[in-house]
Amino acid sequence: MPARQTKSRIITLTTDFGLSDHFVGVMKGVILGLAPEATIVDISHDVAPFEVLDGAYTIAQAWGYFPKGTVHVVVVDPGVGTTRRPLLLEAGGQCFIGPDNGVFSMIYDLGPHRVREITNAKLFRPEVSRTFHGRDVFAPAAAHLANGARPAGFGKAIQDYIQLGLMKPQQIARRAWSATVLKVDHFGNLITNLPVEQFPKVRGGNFELSVGLRRIFGLSETFADCIAGEPAVIIGSSGYLEVVVREGSAAKLMGCGVGAPVELTFFPD
Amino acid sequence: MPARQTKSRIITLTTDFGLSDHFVGVMKGVILGLAPEATIVDISHDVAPFEVLDGAYTIAQAWGYFPKGTVHVVVVDPGVGTTRRPLLLEAGGQCFIGPDNGVFSMIYDLGPHRVREITNAKLFRPEVSRTFHGRDVFAPAAAHLANGARPAGFGKAIQDYIQLGLMKPQQIARRAWSATVLKVDHFGNLITNLPVEQFPKVRGGNFELSVGLRRIFGLSETFADCIAGEPAVIIGSSGYLEVVVREGSAAKLMGCGVGAPVELTFFPD
Amino acid sequence: MPARQTKSRIITLTTDFGLSDHFVGVMKGVILGLAPEATIVDISHDVAPFEVLDGAYTIAQAWGYFPKGTVHVVVVDPGVGTTRRPLLLEAGGQCFIGPDNGVFSMIYDLGPHRVREITNAKLFRPEVSRTFHGRDVFAPAAAHLANGARPAGFGKAIQDYIQLGLMKPQQIARRAWSATVLKVDHFGNLITNLPVEQFPKVRGGNFELSVGLRRIFGLSETFADCIAGEPAVIIGSSGYLEVVVREGSAAKLMGCGVGAPVELTFFPD
Repeated sequence: MPARQTKSRIITLTTDFGLSDHFVGVMKGVILGLAPEATIVDISHDVAPFEVLDGAYTIAQAWGYFPKGTVHVVVVDPGVGTTRRPLLLEAGGQCFIGPDNGVFSMIYDLGPHRVREITNAKLFRPEVSRTFHGRDVFAPAAAHLANGARPAGFGKAIQDYIQLGLMKPQQIARRAWSATVLKVDHFGNLITNLPVEQFPKVRGGNFELSVGLRRIFGLSETFADCIAGEPAVIIGSSGYLEVVVREGSAAKLMGCGVGAPVELTFFPD
Repeated sequence: MPARQTKSRIITLTTDFGLSDHFVGVMKGVILGLAPEATIVDISHDVAPFEVLDGAYTIAQAWGYFPKGTVHVVVVDPGVGTTRRPLLLEAGGQCFIGPDNGVFSMIYDLGPHRVREITNAKLFRPEVSRTFHGRDVFAPAAAHLANGARPAGFGKAIQDYIQLGLMKPQQIARRAWSATVLKVDHFGNLITNLPVEQFPKVRGGNFELSVGLRRIFGLSETFADCIAGEPAVIIGSSGYLEVVVREGSAAKLMGCGVGAPVELTFFPD
Repeated sequence: MPARQTKSRIITLTTDFGLSDHFVGVMKGVILGLAPEATIVDISHDVAPFEVLDGAYTIAQAWGYFPKGTVHVVVVDPGVGTTRRPLLLEAGGQCFIGPDNGVFSMIYDLGPHRVREITNAKLFRPEVSRTFHGRDVFAPAAAHLANGARPAGFGKAIQDYIQLGLMKPQQIARRAWSATVLKVDHFGNLITNLPVEQFPKVRGGNFELSVGLRRIFGLSETFADCIAGEPAVIIGSSGYLEVVVREGSAAKLMGCGVGAPVELTFFPD
């Protein structure tokens, strides 16, 4: 029953368009006009305007929780209308559509993948504006993909796509790493670029993490373990160390935001 | 046709996660991975962070407008990762999934209901984090319910679930009640905890309501009946008395917010 | 296969309700209770509160990207509960439902259309409140329409519906037009009421546009063509001239908002 199969095709949207304009609604209209059976899911439309790295982080945190065959559209696109290329990325059994500006860098980083430049103009709206490729290029391409169009028909595989240098922890002493704040979430939690996978010893709790003017010792298991009003370090739901304040905002308490320096130091055992 | 029946299963989401992160999108990915035919509806993701009573109010206002069999997921969960229990509540022909912290208090209050502790770990994601049960516990449990899993398989019925003392009007004199502001809505209207059902005499208009430094006399029928720039009392769409300002914000005009004291006094007939 | 046809019926929502309350979720519950197969799409719920013209602009920009047969519900309704009439508008192969306050003025302006007053109370919820017609009148009427109810059954065609005078450019000299800012979008771009269709000569670039204290000469093709930090004029995705700042906010830079005066002057060839 091919109809059933088509039905379960999911298209997700991640943009910096906000929700106060008609932009996101219009993308959905274009998608449903071409693929009426698609299920559209918003990841977030509050990516910081023009911040490609924030978009890269957002889709990287989300895609793994969607079923195989999902099509993810990501539009954080300061270069819209220039020669920057539209891409189709296949990775992890899913597809990603968006501009070639590094917004998929965290996914390239994860494992095997194939990137195509989308050159088949039949996949676009008949008239392509210079300023709204979310509507004219990316939404219709995603709809065709959800309808079962084969990636090979989108364009040739390329190797020279843009991959941003991601902020990774740097070892600065035998037991110390310099790191940074990747993201401040809705609750004011500071998500660092320190993955517990790379630093499994943090589970032992024998470390300090400094951020802003504070030093925090050891690991808390849950928000409720933290002392009210005091910053604490937990292993966040995405696997990164996070600086949190129980029922409060670490970002406000510590006056820190994206890019703030973080230092992780292990004590001798 | 069981396929049709499954299709019409609705899952609603009410959280304090905001829309700027990947959190809500990820919950939807988990749900659609397990229940591809579910229809997901957002009630609100702007519940005040960690404010269980605000979540309780939001779901209580919304659920009655959904068809029987709807599954409502509510995640306002400052105790995530502790021993606080995940619950399945059955009431009014609908199901509710969320933490045992009182977020369902206004629904317990409405009439007969059954509460189960969800102990069947097969309903959860294989790995359950300490900080994101919306993704790992509540979303998958809701998906299984929407797929037709029977409540009895979720866990045993319990009686000792947490029921918050709700702010109810207190009689302070023969004709006077002390009350409070339950919620400030998007327009700045002040929703009180005075249900017209309990005070049908307000329809006669022979009363004054004091809030902040203002006394308001009698009832307005519609927003348009109010004098521009002056506060007025109307019967709100949820059946509570509301203090409103025509095409303006009562909260701003009166400098009042959630918890502000309100006094209702009837005049002698 | 009538079931398939019904499935592809889309209902869009455009309101000033915001997303922090239960209002939008409740409208969706009412729709899905009556029309379980409807696909609901949010255009925006951040129309400026009570601003009918902002709602008129939002739906006018969006509707053309939806397939024939879509039902658009627009609720920006300061006169809710008064005698202002609920309308069903048919235009361009689509249907629109909302209050008779001019919110459809930009659609009336586009071409042939038919307007009916919705008088058939069977299409409403059994009890209609004085303050929430989005829930009690417009949502159920839209659901019935999506279910295939015929427009003729909604009420009689009327001619005396409210049509707002839209701000249109005024010629003030042989080569000069006075115009205004219609909308400030999420990025801070200033959308003027100067349609390129009416002023095709702007493509030649031989003009100046003044807004606030700035004069901007000629046309930029894409955001990337603009000089960083300097305002520029582009043809926006909706076909109006827009004043933009590359990766910045023109509204902030220029201290301008909705209603700010704009002047377009062509130079002699």
